[in-house]
Amino acid sequence: MPPKNTLRKKLYTIIFEAETPAGKAFDIVLLVLILASVAVVTLESVVSLRRDYLYIFVTLEWIFTIIFTVEYLLRIYSTSKPFKYIFSFFGVVDFLSIVPTYLSLFILGSQYLLVVRVLRLIRIARIFKLTRFINEGQVLSNALRASATKIAVFLGTVLLLVVIIGSAIYIIEGAANGFTSIPKSIYWTIVTLTTVGYGDIAPKTALGQVLASFVMIMGYGIIAVPTGIVTVEMSRSDKQQVATQVCPNCHTEGHPLGAHFCYNCGFKFDR
Amino acid sequence: MPPKNTLRKKLYTIIFEAETPAGKAFDIVLLVLILASVAVVTLESVVSLRRDYLYIFVTLEWIFTIIFTVEYLLRIYSTSKPFKYIFSFFGVVDFLSIVPTYLSLFILGSQYLLVVRVLRLIRIARIFKLTRFINEGQVLSNALRASATKIAVFLGTVLLLVVIIGSAIYIIEGAANGFTSIPKSIYWTIVTLTTVGYGDIAPKTALGQVLASFVMIMGYGIIAVPTGIVTVEMSRSDKQQVATQVCPNCHTEGHPLGAHFCYNCGFKFDR
Amino acid sequence: MPPKNTLRKKLYTIIFEAETPAGKAFDIVLLVLILASVAVVTLESVVSLRRDYLYIFVTLEWIFTIIFTVEYLLRIYSTSKPFKYIFSFFGVVDFLSIVPTYLSLFILGSQYLLVVRVLRLIRIARIFKLTRFINEGQVLSNALRASATKIAVFLGTVLLLVVIIGSAIYIIEGAANGFTSIPKSIYWTIVTLTTVGYGDIAPKTALGQVLASFVMIMGYGIIAVPTGIVTVEMSRSDKQQVATQVCPNCHTEGHPLGAHFCYNCGFKFDR
Amino acid sequence: MPPKNTLRKKLYTIIFEAETPAGKAFDIVLLVLILASVAVVTLESVVSLRRDYLYIFVTLEWIFTIIFTVEYLLRIYSTSKPFKYIFSFFGVVDFLSIVPTYLSLFILGSQYLLVVRVLRLIRIARIFKLTRFINEGQVLSNALRASATKIAVFLGTVLLLVVIIGSAIYIIEGAANGFTSIPKSIYWTIVTLTTVGYGDIAPKTALGQVLASFVMIMGYGIIAVPTGIVTVEMSRSDKQQVATQVCPNCHTEGHPLGAHFCYNCGFKFDR
Repeated sequence: MPPKNTLRKKLYTIIFEAETPAGKAFDIVLLVLILASVAVVTLESVVSLRRDYLYIFVTLEWIFTIIFTVEYLLRIYSTSKPFKYIFSFFGVVDFLSIVPTYLSLFILGSQYLLVVRVLRLIRIARIFKLTRFINEGQVLSNALRASATKIAVFLGTVLLLVVIIGSAIYIIEGAANGFTSIPKSIYWTIVTLTTVGYGDIAPKTALGQVLASFVMIMGYGIIAVPTGIVTVEMSRSDKQQVATQVCPNCHTEGHPLGAHFCYNCGFKFDR
Repeated sequence: MPPKNTLRKKLYTIIFEAETPAGKAFDIVLLVLILASVAVVTLESVVSLRRDYLYIFVTLEWIFTIIFTVEYLLRIYSTSKPFKYIFSFFGVVDFLSIVPTYLSLFILGSQYLLVVRVLRLIRIARIFKLTRFINEGQVLSNALRASATKIAVFLGTVLLLVVIIGSAIYIIEGAANGFTSIPKSIYWTIVTLTTVGYGDIAPKTALGQVLASFVMIMGYGIIAVPTGIVTVEMSRSDKQQVATQVCPNCHTEGHPLGAHFCYNCGFKFDR
Repeated sequence: MPPKNTLRKKLYTIIFEAETPAGKAFDIVLLVLILASVAVVTLESVVSLRRDYLYIFVTLEWIFTIIFTVEYLLRIYSTSKPFKYIFSFFGVVDFLSIVPTYLSLFILGSQYLLVVRVLRLIRIARIFKLTRFINEGQVLSNALRASATKIAVFLGTVLLLVVIIGSAIYIIEGAANGFTSIPKSIYWTIVTLTTVGYGDIAPKTALGQVLASFVMIMGYGIIAVPTGIVTVEMSRSDKQQVATQVCPNCHTEGHPLGAHFCYNCGFKFDR
Repeated sequence: MPPKNTLRKKLYTIIFEAETPAGKAFDIVLLVLILASVAVVTLESVVSLRRDYLYIFVTLEWIFTIIFTVEYLLRIYSTSKPFKYIFSFFGVVDFLSIVPTYLSLFILGSQYLLVVRVLRLIRIARIFKLTRFINEGQVLSNALRASATKIAVFLGTVLLLVVIIGSAIYIIEGAANGFTSIPKSIYWTIVTLTTVGYGDIAPKTALGQVLASFVMIMGYGIIAVPTGIVTVEMSRSDKQQVATQVCPNCHTEGHPLGAHFCYNCGFKFDR
């Protein structure tokens, strides 16, 4: 139910939708502002830049915050159900995007609080929800959701292995070689199994290196499992798109999308 | 053959099965207890935590051990074939899950013995055996089993390569650059081929770096092989899904989904 | 429109085409010269080699430059539309391949300028454009282009995650543990998520290592997504192979291999 | 043409073939001897073991060498075309497997020469050639060979990228940050692109880390390409095995191997 007031209605179309030229322009401006403001948050954390350009950073940050505040208030004003919006996921994100700057007036040295503002990035997800990207994203997330149980079984098995192997390497290497506790040894096992391999902790004994080799080859091999799961799932959802394309006359498959005739027997499709 | 005694029968249904509400509740409580007890074993290995909370850890550990001991005895009592259970895989795991705590009374400083208790995690596998996860796990393990020979050929070739390349890098780099022996050089080759790359040993000579580059690109490429094997196998088992339909005429299994006739004897299914 | 002058015509066939024996020989000589000249540029950057063999390097470089200059001038001369060639992509690359050597006469110590000459490698792409490799490359690049939107969605999500996780690790670990700024923390997140794992920065706090473990397992898992996308796309283009058959009636392309009828207008192919 | 002499004929069957029980036993003994001798070569390179067990190592090595020498001479004796065998691939490998031990009598300190003996491992390939593993290996190597051109295009593009990116990082980071020459920078690029990530060289400047992030994400993504190529190729060769299984009556596919009836229409296959 859109708001009856004409101004509110217009604002709603511009702010919440993207079908009109004004709505599209609003989205693009918002996207640029979000990216710019996150860039400022990010660069501000660099000590040398903060020292030299603090004035510019603070000024820009206030400009962004005021714009986002106005946008937030307009969203509340234009929607017909303000409370539903305020307590929705994106409503909370919008609020968290502006509140740290205001809080920084009262809480001094709240450097870490300000980092919360990178959550503004999540707002980008809303913008893209309104574009053609959503379809492709849907295919991806469908494939992932369909294989969720398989992936859960896989992850569970991996975690079980990681704890047992982590305990084994803790016994084999011991605190003297950097494996000071089981949690740290489990951390090392994850670092190795996923083939990240920082090298901050590495086995020193021969037996430890044999176990490490085993873990690496295992990690190298079992990456095939999630890959296989997702590929099969994607391939299935891909085929379901073209599943209707079987010739009723000669049963040939593989017709290009939008085919009007069977490429094998020339049968005309009723569509 | 379930035990005739009613109490034993009931206990059997609760402990070994998961169809009844009591059986499900038992499984969930057991799952929580196992995870909590493994968390205690893990955290106890952290020096600073052991120093500060030793009393709590020891108390919790005895509570868990007594509960698991009672469970173990109930399992022996409720099953109709106690010896078969005791010497079964899970029977041994159950025994190993409780015995280290009792042994720690007699053997002082048996820190490493206690780590054996993380094997309790394996008991989780039993719990999940009784849920819907088993089906998905079946698909995964079937796919892996079907491609076992291909994976063995692949792994054998990789191991052969790893030994030969390890020997080559040992000659090229030598002990002065950290490649002190062939086993250590083989360890480095595995670290590199699997793209783990700790960096604890790294080639220093130009020729060694050329060989390393070659190994990396090879490792980067051949990961495609196990991935391809598993994906094709999963895709195949995905297509030929559901072996539940057994031919009532010739008892063949493995009919494709939606089969109307037995592929072996041509018997027509009533469906 | 080929140039009317016979010499220019002949040169054009030799230099720009590869159907004649002379054209093929020209391409092979050019390929060898490019590889040799890039090898010289590369080796010249090694301090010890530059010190000992500077004279040889400079001599070789001038020989290559003069040959490439002659080739460049012949290309301009033989083509019927010189300006179109000069400002085409390959024309600019050809120019950039020779100009740094001449500039080095005027600008002293222009070590970095000379590195631009490795762009000569791009010229190899032109040579292979004229061989059978182009077909295979086409299949690859088609598959990548078809999945471009999916890959963009995937990359966008990854970048969003990387910024948010990078900010979180910056707060958790702080400057004392090497995470001196958000950009650096984002860099660490990319290093970890892609399973590269240099180890130049690594989390030291327990919470940081938990987050790192999460990132690693995530990175280990989500590599399945681009792999799945590309595999499905390749599999599809593999099935619908050969777009060479164009319907003589309605000019539709993209008929499956062995098509007897146009899938668009039903026209029967004479084959 | 097998040798006419009965003893030679028998020896030939035992040594070169694996159909008879004696031939199989010979292969198994040979396999064990090769693995044991390579284990000795490998362990001998460990300084502490060589110091303590040199006597045992040398004795074992002479036993292995004499056995392999006898085997080598028997192979020459039993085959009807000795020269063809001697200069065949496996003939040369057999020769290289024994000659270093004899040479070590004349050349002192020939530690590196002895490493050549790990080439004995290649002889294992001959043994497995005679077993059922060959079929699976055939499927793998067929799939790899069929996709060789695609993989070559892919590798060529990767190498081109690696040289250009390596040159760029050399200019950006420079010798001060460890990127002392273009070859070394190319080595770093390969280490990063393949997600190995030793960390012996790592970018220190902001621009270098941006480029590194780009390379990592690229490397993370393009691994999908060889994986996709090999998966599609394996999937194709997998389908060709079952391609004959199409019902001539209703054109249904996906019949299990060895089906006698169509699972869809009950049509009896003529086989």
